[in-house]
Amino acid sequence: MNPMQPAAVERPSAPSTKLPRTMRAVVKAARGPGAEIREVPVPSCGPGEVLLKVLRAGVCGTDLHIYTWDTWSQDRIKPPVTLGHEFVGEVIERGAGVTEVEVGDRVSCESHIVCQHCVACRTGSGHVCENTRILGVDVNGGFAEYVTVPAVNAWRAPRNIPIEVAAVMEPLGNAVHTAFAGPLSGCNIAITGCGPIGLFAIAVARAAGASRVFASDVAPYRLDLARRLNADAVLDVSREKFVDRILELTNGRGLDGVLEMSGNPQAVRDGLSALRNGGRISLLGLPKEPFELNWNRLVIFKGITMHGIIGRRMYDTWYQMDNLLGSGRLDIRPVITHVMPMEKFDEAIGLLRSGHAGKVVLVPWGEQAGGSA
Amino acid sequence: MNPMQPAAVERPSAPSTKLPRTMRAVVKAARGPGAEIREVPVPSCGPGEVLLKVLRAGVCGTDLHIYTWDTWSQDRIKPPVTLGHEFVGEVIERGAGVTEVEVGDRVSCESHIVCQHCVACRTGSGHVCENTRILGVDVNGGFAEYVTVPAVNAWRAPRNIPIEVAAVMEPLGNAVHTAFAGPLSGCNIAITGCGPIGLFAIAVARAAGASRVFASDVAPYRLDLARRLNADAVLDVSREKFVDRILELTNGRGLDGVLEMSGNPQAVRDGLSALRNGGRISLLGLPKEPFELNWNRLVIFKGITMHGIIGRRMYDTWYQMDNLLGSGRLDIRPVITHVMPMEKFDEAIGLLRSGHAGKVVLVPWGEQAGGSA
Amino acid sequence: MNPMQPAAVERPSAPSTKLPRTMRAVVKAARGPGAEIREVPVPSCGPGEVLLKVLRAGVCGTDLHIYTWDTWSQDRIKPPVTLGHEFVGEVIERGAGVTEVEVGDRVSCESHIVCQHCVACRTGSGHVCENTRILGVDVNGGFAEYVTVPAVNAWRAPRNIPIEVAAVMEPLGNAVHTAFAGPLSGCNIAITGCGPIGLFAIAVARAAGASRVFASDVAPYRLDLARRLNADAVLDVSREKFVDRILELTNGRGLDGVLEMSGNPQAVRDGLSALRNGGRISLLGLPKEPFELNWNRLVIFKGITMHGIIGRRMYDTWYQMDNLLGSGRLDIRPVITHVMPMEKFDEAIGLLRSGHAGKVVLVPWGEQAGGSA
Amino acid sequence: MNPMQPAAVERPSAPSTKLPRTMRAVVKAARGPGAEIREVPVPSCGPGEVLLKVLRAGVCGTDLHIYTWDTWSQDRIKPPVTLGHEFVGEVIERGAGVTEVEVGDRVSCESHIVCQHCVACRTGSGHVCENTRILGVDVNGGFAEYVTVPAVNAWRAPRNIPIEVAAVMEPLGNAVHTAFAGPLSGCNIAITGCGPIGLFAIAVARAAGASRVFASDVAPYRLDLARRLNADAVLDVSREKFVDRILELTNGRGLDGVLEMSGNPQAVRDGLSALRNGGRISLLGLPKEPFELNWNRLVIFKGITMHGIIGRRMYDTWYQMDNLLGSGRLDIRPVITHVMPMEKFDEAIGLLRSGHAGKVVLVPWGEQAGGSA
Repeated sequence: MNPMQPAAVERPSAPSTKLPRTMRAVVKAARGPGAEIREVPVPSCGPGEVLLKVLRAGVCGTDLHIYTWDTWSQDRIKPPVTLGHEFVGEVIERGAGVTEVEVGDRVSCESHIVCQHCVACRTGSGHVCENTRILGVDVNGGFAEYVTVPAVNAWRAPRNIPIEVAAVMEPLGNAVHTAFAGPLSGCNIAITGCGPIGLFAIAVARAAGASRVFASDVAPYRLDLARRLNADAVLDVSREKFVDRILELTNGRGLDGVLEMSGNPQAVRDGLSALRNGGRISLLGLPKEPFELNWNRLVIFKGITMHGIIGRRMYDTWYQMDNLLGSGRLDIRPVITHVMPMEKFDEAIGLLRSGHAGKVVLVPWGEQAGGSA
Repeated sequence: MNPMQPAAVERPSAPSTKLPRTMRAVVKAARGPGAEIREVPVPSCGPGEVLLKVLRAGVCGTDLHIYTWDTWSQDRIKPPVTLGHEFVGEVIERGAGVTEVEVGDRVSCESHIVCQHCVACRTGSGHVCENTRILGVDVNGGFAEYVTVPAVNAWRAPRNIPIEVAAVMEPLGNAVHTAFAGPLSGCNIAITGCGPIGLFAIAVARAAGASRVFASDVAPYRLDLARRLNADAVLDVSREKFVDRILELTNGRGLDGVLEMSGNPQAVRDGLSALRNGGRISLLGLPKEPFELNWNRLVIFKGITMHGIIGRRMYDTWYQMDNLLGSGRLDIRPVITHVMPMEKFDEAIGLLRSGHAGKVVLVPWGEQAGGSA
Repeated sequence: MNPMQPAAVERPSAPSTKLPRTMRAVVKAARGPGAEIREVPVPSCGPGEVLLKVLRAGVCGTDLHIYTWDTWSQDRIKPPVTLGHEFVGEVIERGAGVTEVEVGDRVSCESHIVCQHCVACRTGSGHVCENTRILGVDVNGGFAEYVTVPAVNAWRAPRNIPIEVAAVMEPLGNAVHTAFAGPLSGCNIAITGCGPIGLFAIAVARAAGASRVFASDVAPYRLDLARRLNADAVLDVSREKFVDRILELTNGRGLDGVLEMSGNPQAVRDGLSALRNGGRISLLGLPKEPFELNWNRLVIFKGITMHGIIGRRMYDTWYQMDNLLGSGRLDIRPVITHVMPMEKFDEAIGLLRSGHAGKVVLVPWGEQAGGSA
Repeated sequence: MNPMQPAAVERPSAPSTKLPRTMRAVVKAARGPGAEIREVPVPSCGPGEVLLKVLRAGVCGTDLHIYTWDTWSQDRIKPPVTLGHEFVGEVIERGAGVTEVEVGDRVSCESHIVCQHCVACRTGSGHVCENTRILGVDVNGGFAEYVTVPAVNAWRAPRNIPIEVAAVMEPLGNAVHTAFAGPLSGCNIAITGCGPIGLFAIAVARAAGASRVFASDVAPYRLDLARRLNADAVLDVSREKFVDRILELTNGRGLDGVLEMSGNPQAVRDGLSALRNGGRISLLGLPKEPFELNWNRLVIFKGITMHGIIGRRMYDTWYQMDNLLGSGRLDIRPVITHVMPMEKFDEAIGLLRSGHAGKVVLVPWGEQAGGSA
């Protein structure tokens, strides 16, 4: 239903005289570290698909993994593939049967292309579709001048959302999905890990009604950003004990919920320890390797609920983002620390590596940054 | 387990030399309209109970019903009874076996005295206890210098809550219970009816994460208060059509939830019409009489969920209030429009009748208003 | 996405030499009472659609409404239209892009053709799609030799389900959806109204873990069927008081849930009265006209949850039916009281009118009844 | 509120002339392996308590741990203490203020004595009370002729429940709590571990509406019992691969839920692997030590929900047991493989050690087995 074009095919017919035959793109060209900027064909647009002119794109930790060619990437990536799974674009062509969006619409994109046929897809849980393919990972993505996506993945976010924010609704949706997986309103919530999704989660938890939002990390740069997002308390767990401090901050009651964004085993254990009995922990951060828990003390005796979280609920999470952002309740701009030309992709990767960046947004060739955010 | 003393008994032994034998109280003395200020015995304090010096008390629409001696009151009230079911007091004596609170604690009070034995009580749903007795309705209440309550009903709210706010946590809890009965975070919510509980609900829905909060009423005084509470839109349904305006405000999508605070049949019907399919309406407002619905069009075809709401979840709602108020996220002070001596109870009733009041808070004899709120 | 063919078009090309150009069908031919058996074109099969040879079809109360041409039908039905929204068929042709089913599959059909674009559809709630069209009501249905349906509506039920049962999964799904809308396991449940869906609900509630299942009606024929389905108690509410009897049967505790299948105002009121505080009532039966409730006494003071139920969750309900029927836990065969040729449609309508039928299943021309059920 | 008497005090006044001053009891008398049968004082009955004549008592794996004096026991048990936390008794004396039960009532007992004051207790989650004391572990239990329990812990189960079944409602409640922690009706459920609670869970899952119930273990004796409880499939995981077999049994779809009763790390991992995406696992079995998981593959990417389960919901689980057992839907008698005199406690412990027992029920001195079950 949502077939994607092969990595590089000739375009049979241009939608207008202005559409070029080739474009610039950030391509994982070969098995091994790095990525290169290449001239590749502008993708075609099949039935049920839309062709977008990319306006902005966000860089994700996953892009860094692919760039450095870690074990996960070696298993998953089949070069050549255009990278980029966070982006916003303008619809410039619609494939056969597309009615969801119009040419000219500005659309953010869900990166999971799902099968629509498996049990998960047919019961409102497309985010755990068994046959998921991911834009910029399994099929060509948005670090390019143009990209083709299934029309159902194209989301017309409210026009009053700044374009840099529209570019990163995909990772923002991870934060919203995690936060909304359990009670928030009137709750004491901690976010463990202040990478971009953790930082988003601080803002989301506040906007969505958590009464107190605590955030922890070890990196001063990230802790500073957490403060700028108005976390009620920011815990530097290289210097202070997470559990002690949380108990102090909650009058000994503990947390109602933990949004785990770090994948760090100690953060999971500390989060569990700091939960009140009956609390919940929602796990989005991916641990580097298996780790152990004292199940009895941390989970069973406490009556804890743990959720594994992946992707975004399709499309409940997007409606929630629409409301949060469109109403002005949620402001995530402080997380976006850098906006730079897509041409400087290597530099963006360097920033991520340095740890001195929140979310980095790229401006494709021909687009101009500034003003709109 | 929580036996209340009869309406007026002699006090067997005073807890200290300072406790007088009699006190001033607002008493429903006889079957018929009105209430009178009387000298009555200071209540005693049995096992499991605490004696409070009343610091502040809120006046409720129910007090007006009892004052005017409507049909409901005629069925329910057995004079003589001291009125007042919203109040905050200082613990000055503890009965046998009380460990929950200390002498000197400032406590707000849950007004429902529940049996602890019925199915509802034993499954975490004491708010629908089959044997509920209500302070100030079935047993002597808080419009007095002193009042005795079961220790489990005495709630030590955070000290940073203003005393007038602590006085009205009971009706605030109605608003919190109604709001928290369904999804709030990231939702479009309307509150129909801007009496004090409706006004509280505006503030609660905002603090608890609703993305857009709309409020409707017909009285200009109340609509003004709704604006002061920062409702995203305030609908004067004497002049504009609720459903049309809501659809306009929500881009045609409709509401995710309605908090019905008016008991007005048209408000219920309009609320149902304006809900998106699959939405929820939580009904707290008490209709004056039975009324009809077009069930097919308004409920069944739309897949609506309706909740009947009464009281406060015991004590989930109180913990939620603790977090909302204690964190500073929730500010309900604009709802409290009048603070006056309890001696002027008749005047307070007059204010409620006039419709030119939000919540009226009374200051008992010997207490001094001002400063603390 | 799922366009249905117009009422009668010429078939451009037959899938095989054996497919005839015309077929027999039960057609609502004109505005007014009745229906007629006509020779009409065999429908074509567009992209995303499948053409089925109809094997069996169930007759529904809605068919009776359309036949008698009641007010609802006058508003909704645009003749000519082939009736029939409950059926099972064999796939004999697949339109372009269809991968869900294979030629030769036996499929039951979801009758709601939904838009896939509205908020409801995109958040797992297609059953309350704002743009629903219904097979046999808005577009040609299954009282015919052949029918075309969207491939996503074709459900491959387990092969071990008898064909007459497979024919009526649509109304069975109404019962499952209603039953599964709230707690069932270990609950005391009453079903008010023992038409076919109410009878299905008795069997479903038992198979799905209700501890006690009570059923009420006034018609002796239906009460007998309820007994055959092993309801724990069957209440003839023309002779006994529903509430008194339920309290007796539940040791005074009342019901945990009511599945309302009658649309009768007194049944709704009795159901609410007999619920324990905090219970739920799920409303599927369509009242003939608006009716009133004592909201305070029956809903608000009791803390009741009411659900409006329509259709089947798409496709959660179908997976649940798969499990219930495929495992052998659920046996609804006693509800199917008549199997007769489709040619005798008028007689089937007469049976429904008489009230002396459970579910009536029709065998299309050329199919042979018997053996398989 | 529910203070228990110290281990052994003189009885101030007997309730009747027939109550002896001393009794036989199975006492953990000293730090170290074993237990001894001793003559101890009959306990007194304080305010809010009831004195029971013990009728039957179940032996639990925890009793075996205490007997063998494992690490957990060394930390927790303070001898001397009378063992036994599963039992049924007859009320022979009520302390001051007790209204819940009458003298002569037959009552099963909740073993968790909870504080009623902590957040968990005050929000309907007493099973995770922070101050839980357990009968037969922290305070004197029911392996004796008499026992005193808080009146709120005494549960009047339906009279039609066999006495041996009434004796083991405490561990049965563990199974019910675990099963009811997530969806059951119409679900495919596996129980990993067929000790007595696992065996109970098989029967519960069936009675509560699971469509298919699979059970796994390695011990032939337990696998035989699982078959006797009509599990739809019994998996000997010493011979067959859990995941492969489950996929085969579910047509490749996987499980909707796992009830983990073994504490075995491989069972947890296999259970997670065999869950469909979005499924749930409820963990009651206590692992002997911390163990690791591949969180990404088994929990996060699959969107799994994990619950830690302890005790019984107080008292929701007991009402559910009432309905399940009282209606006759649930029959757990095949799990009770041995009924023997309490005098033979050492032999009972030997049976548990041998693995050749399901649930062992003890008959106190003076009581006679037989007939009633």
